[in-house]
Amino acid sequence: MRIVHNPDHHRHQGRLEMFRGRLVPCHETPARVDHVLAELGRRPQGPVVLPDDAGLDALLARVHAPRYLAFLGRAWDDWVALDPANAALDAIPSVWPVRGFRADLEPDNFAARLGLYSFDAGTPLTAGSWAAARAGAACALTAARAVTGGGERQAFALTRPPGHHAGADFFGGYCFLNNAAVAAQALREAGAARVAVLDIDYHHGNGTQSLFYERADVFTASIHGDPRTEYPFYLGHADERGAGPGLGHNLNLPLPRGTGWAGWAAALDAALAALGTFGADACVVSLGVDTYAGDPISGFTLDSADYTEIGRRIAAALGGRPCVWVYEGGYAVDAVGVNVVNVLEGANAAGG
Amino acid sequence: MRIVHNPDHHRHQGRLEMFRGRLVPCHETPARVDHVLAELGRRPQGPVVLPDDAGLDALLARVHAPRYLAFLGRAWDDWVALDPANAALDAIPSVWPVRGFRADLEPDNFAARLGLYSFDAGTPLTAGSWAAARAGAACALTAARAVTGGGERQAFALTRPPGHHAGADFFGGYCFLNNAAVAAQALREAGAARVAVLDIDYHHGNGTQSLFYERADVFTASIHGDPRTEYPFYLGHADERGAGPGLGHNLNLPLPRGTGWAGWAAALDAALAALGTFGADACVVSLGVDTYAGDPISGFTLDSADYTEIGRRIAAALGGRPCVWVYEGGYAVDAVGVNVVNVLEGANAAGG
Repeated sequence: MRIVHNPDHHRHQGRLEMFRGRLVPCHETPARVDHVLAELGRRPQGPVVLPDDAGLDALLARVHAPRYLAFLGRAWDDWVALDPANAALDAIPSVWPVRGFRADLEPDNFAARLGLYSFDAGTPLTAGSWAAARAGAACALTAARAVTGGGERQAFALTRPPGHHAGADFFGGYCFLNNAAVAAQALREAGAARVAVLDIDYHHGNGTQSLFYERADVFTASIHGDPRTEYPFYLGHADERGAGPGLGHNLNLPLPRGTGWAGWAAALDAALAALGTFGADACVVSLGVDTYAGDPISGFTLDSADYTEIGRRIAAALGGRPCVWVYEGGYAVDAVGVNVVNVLEGANAAGG
Repeated sequence: MRIVHNPDHHRHQGRLEMFRGRLVPCHETPARVDHVLAELGRRPQGPVVLPDDAGLDALLARVHAPRYLAFLGRAWDDWVALDPANAALDAIPSVWPVRGFRADLEPDNFAARLGLYSFDAGTPLTAGSWAAARAGAACALTAARAVTGGGERQAFALTRPPGHHAGADFFGGYCFLNNAAVAAQALREAGAARVAVLDIDYHHGNGTQSLFYERADVFTASIHGDPRTEYPFYLGHADERGAGPGLGHNLNLPLPRGTGWAGWAAALDAALAALGTFGADACVVSLGVDTYAGDPISGFTLDSADYTEIGRRIAAALGGRPCVWVYEGGYAVDAVGVNVVNVLEGANAAGG
């Protein structure tokens, strides 16, 4: 398995996020990747390579709205231009165009543009957010290339910030660019007729769902905490099955807070069966390890040994078809290294 | 002119609001009403009375969504039930259902419900917010009754929090219940066939516009800072003219930041002419005095003497038809008393 490491991930390092009414230190930290890299040093799972961004910008514009990408690219400079003192702060939005407001016009005001292109106040935009996110998308693209003519059957995009909450034109949930969607689109364009995205992060992959909701060529499945009680709250219900040509190509498996291995594994088996029925030629896995019992902001109770079985079971179900693993959430920092590498080890053992 | 004073307004007193990426002390303070009341002591404009809430709850349910009202009524208790330490904090939302998310289901999670029913992070919900907002709506209703069979031609709802940013099912912009809409609906139900709402706050009255956007019986006009640069950003453009039966019954007059009396007064004359063409039987004025040159968060340059002329000109145009004035914004606290009472004095002189 090739591992594509984002060398710029440290450049995104938010200070404070709004969380349950308070400004608190960000949960999504550089240590999340560093621990995985350190564990890969102890238990190598394949060559660690750097991303190649050739063709990335054109691909990004087929996944995200061009005006959103243009905004992200210049957002930090715009923020600091407002007031040099802003350089010592992250940019956090404070107003959003909810139902009844217009999103068709891009305001001139920076705070208004920041809100237009986001959905929460938990995702600070920092000096290095764009560089880190863009390099992360390049990791996803590079991983997709590794499994389509690159000589690998599996690859892992070891990157942060994560991606699965980012939609066509909004950031949120610690995500700016949807790495899983980038990988899926790259797999499609490399010739895979049918691609599946399996999201096993604790939180519903609302961005990925919305990006492919009306498409028949990409099947999206997500196992996650029930949105009635768990972030991102406003999407991820079982009755969301896709629309238009995509009807029947979205599968949500929400589980109650407190779910342990037995319930979770049953949902995984159901998702893998659906992927088989769909007939995916290639797969992207949004790999969050915030399903871990020790995760500070989540509510499932998997243990470290379960992650080896997750990797094994997914790779076995894919039967050697190309698979791109993309790192999403996981905030129990001391444990994320072991848990992620357990998944990769299980996947390597079963799927080469 | 009867003046209906909200005795509970002090119960809403937010501590911090998110403003341009920072948590700062709230701009919308009890002193905003206290200064007006003190100035009315020096220059009385009519009897000051307390609100009567008979019939209020049924009326509110014809203006706002019942599930939103139910949420507001219990929100503080729900917030403190999460964690007793929350009693020392205000509730500030941090996630919102923007485009592509669902707003049809009400989540169980409090943070999710708080976000579902709001559009910014600048409007803290406090222990007394509901009591203050409900009493404020009662002021608007009482003022409407004063001018429909109550023996007055004009009345003033002296209340806070303000209301014109609040929509059918969301709070924001320091507003929870739309007092102007409550007054307009009460005027309609008291027999006025055609009611106009004229919003002269610096900020576009997005809530009022959206509440009446498809109605032909209520004409809404707003003079405000151009939403391309000014809050609330995502509504208030000149091309928003109403929809369905309401097409042609919404008039937005956005003006550039820096506009002074000449430009502002021309817009006022245009709005009053449109009200005349509509043939309003009664009028509600959303009276913000944040158009003042000294306002800390706004960008027009009116001076105190201009407010007397504003009151005079509006009352003269109405020619004795019933008019309810409702207090909205104005954050230059030392000056709001003089400026508001100047409006009322001008209105009293012209309209009795």
